[in-house]
Amino acid sequence: MKIGIFGATGAVGKELIKVIYDMKLPFESLSLYASERSAGLEVLLPDGKSEAVSDANAVDYTTLDLAFFAIGGGWPKENAKKATEAGCMVIDNSSTYRLDKNVPLVVPEINPHAIGDSMLIANPNCTTAIAAIPLYVLYKEFGLNRVMISTYQAASGAGAEGMKELEEETRHYLSGEKVGNKVFQYPLPFNVIPHIDVFMENGHTKEEMKVVYETRKIFEDPSIPISCIAVRIPVMRAHSEAFFVQTKKRVTPQEYRELLYQTKGVQVKDDPQNKIYPMPLTASGKYDVEVGRIMSSSVFEDRGLDFFISGDQLNKGAASNAVQIAFELLRTGRLS
Amino acid sequence: MKIGIFGATGAVGKELIKVIYDMKLPFESLSLYASERSAGLEVLLPDGKSEAVSDANAVDYTTLDLAFFAIGGGWPKENAKKATEAGCMVIDNSSTYRLDKNVPLVVPEINPHAIGDSMLIANPNCTTAIAAIPLYVLYKEFGLNRVMISTYQAASGAGAEGMKELEEETRHYLSGEKVGNKVFQYPLPFNVIPHIDVFMENGHTKEEMKVVYETRKIFEDPSIPISCIAVRIPVMRAHSEAFFVQTKKRVTPQEYRELLYQTKGVQVKDDPQNKIYPMPLTASGKYDVEVGRIMSSSVFEDRGLDFFISGDQLNKGAASNAVQIAFELLRTGRLS
Repeated sequence: MKIGIFGATGAVGKELIKVIYDMKLPFESLSLYASERSAGLEVLLPDGKSEAVSDANAVDYTTLDLAFFAIGGGWPKENAKKATEAGCMVIDNSSTYRLDKNVPLVVPEINPHAIGDSMLIANPNCTTAIAAIPLYVLYKEFGLNRVMISTYQAASGAGAEGMKELEEETRHYLSGEKVGNKVFQYPLPFNVIPHIDVFMENGHTKEEMKVVYETRKIFEDPSIPISCIAVRIPVMRAHSEAFFVQTKKRVTPQEYRELLYQTKGVQVKDDPQNKIYPMPLTASGKYDVEVGRIMSSSVFEDRGLDFFISGDQLNKGAASNAVQIAFELLRTGRLS
Repeated sequence: MKIGIFGATGAVGKELIKVIYDMKLPFESLSLYASERSAGLEVLLPDGKSEAVSDANAVDYTTLDLAFFAIGGGWPKENAKKATEAGCMVIDNSSTYRLDKNVPLVVPEINPHAIGDSMLIANPNCTTAIAAIPLYVLYKEFGLNRVMISTYQAASGAGAEGMKELEEETRHYLSGEKVGNKVFQYPLPFNVIPHIDVFMENGHTKEEMKVVYETRKIFEDPSIPISCIAVRIPVMRAHSEAFFVQTKKRVTPQEYRELLYQTKGVQVKDDPQNKIYPMPLTASGKYDVEVGRIMSSSVFEDRGLDFFISGDQLNKGAASNAVQIAFELLRTGRLS
């Protein structure tokens, strides 16, 4: 198949290229697109060749079978219809279509069937994607009565510019210079900012409500009560999340661990006495989401668990989930 | 009165000196003590004078009326009795006596009466001290059915050495050198470590259980269900904490805000549309704990709130609470 990556010079775009090669997604051609500003740049591919980036706005979608969209703003809205009408399937990483009832929102380990015959498939928000598998394991086996999540989100959630700002401004901090900010609302070095995306009427941010609504859509259960406090911290590219969960059925940490051992996409890191627990230091660059600190709930008696996870924001939080969707399209014969 | 500060060259000791001057705690003399290693060092006082540090192990407690203990390990155990028997009252910042039923654990805004005629008073753990006032306001007015706290804790919780390690190792990280760790279990720069203090049988850390047990003792209510996940992040000296609370009575964000406005020791920073919320950047070096992101609960219907706080770990988390206890001893005539 002929693949196009849109936003190929951004943090998610670059990770998509890496993951496509890593996971050996078969392709006939891989074309790179970005905004006019980046057109003409050469990108080094994992196989050692380099590839020129074309202007995303000048693309002819009839030349492509599958497009990965990793461009935000109004771009997906302007292009998804064009692409799909030209016969090019789209996996969109933006929030544009995630809650559109006509567009499937897919975590392939959970709801691959949702893809159906849709030409356009939405990739979940990074925080949702990282949380989805560990949470779904609990949901399926024990039911979810209440879920409370507080996040420890990396700079990469704001793209390559976010990571660059964190690094540069940390240098300024350490050399006693003025610490600035453009990408983030406040200087991020050695700080914590409980503000990601815009604030909504209910006091929550859009980021927080994405976790709530997207999780419900992926699990196909609009009734799960979920609350999320989303917080940016000075970490480069792995999100961590603390969970307090009330289940419908009785559950023990060991029962949950045993289920996780059998689950693809997660790595149990839960031997705290030996200093084994999830951390960005170990989760960064990895495909699996680390799950650990699994404990009996102190507030929901025997029907609840506390735990902690860490997952790569660019990989499972974005690129690898999208590439897994492409594999699902191959498996079901919708692409070849 | 004659005051001694023990551990005067440490992070909490230095903050105690600053806060005693800032808050104008009256004293006849202020003597500084530290381990033998630091004895002889000169410490610059806020009034411009400097003061030599004496060996803590060579002190004659009969020369003091009040000792602030900011030394950990076995030291408080070896010295508290010696001091109090010599007529010197002790305010101990370590965890040694906090859960001892014969020793009051005091947050002066909440349970000053607990001091009674005790010669030894325990100062709470920093995470507890920062959380106590905002949580007590809810407890008193609406009752607490369940409290879930996840923390974002600063390097200063591990003392001056912790802050130094974070700064130095961040330099190593940015210059591409090997990033090491001695104070923390893993390198802290751009990382998150869900491990503070040792792990207990129940899978929680001692730090997490301190929050649970100390809060119950300060509130004088052993029945409050509390769960805490304590997490170290790369921040210098202010702890943040995310709260999910189920109350016994109905509560709205506005009712809680209005109570907080009337509460000493907290500053409401809750105007997210104007980017006003708690952050280490603004809470560091301050006496008040910042409280914001106050939201109706999405999981406990109208009997719950979510919120976020940030407070200086060395100030309200340790030094200013201890100095407030000293003021309470003055107010009640136990010291003069």
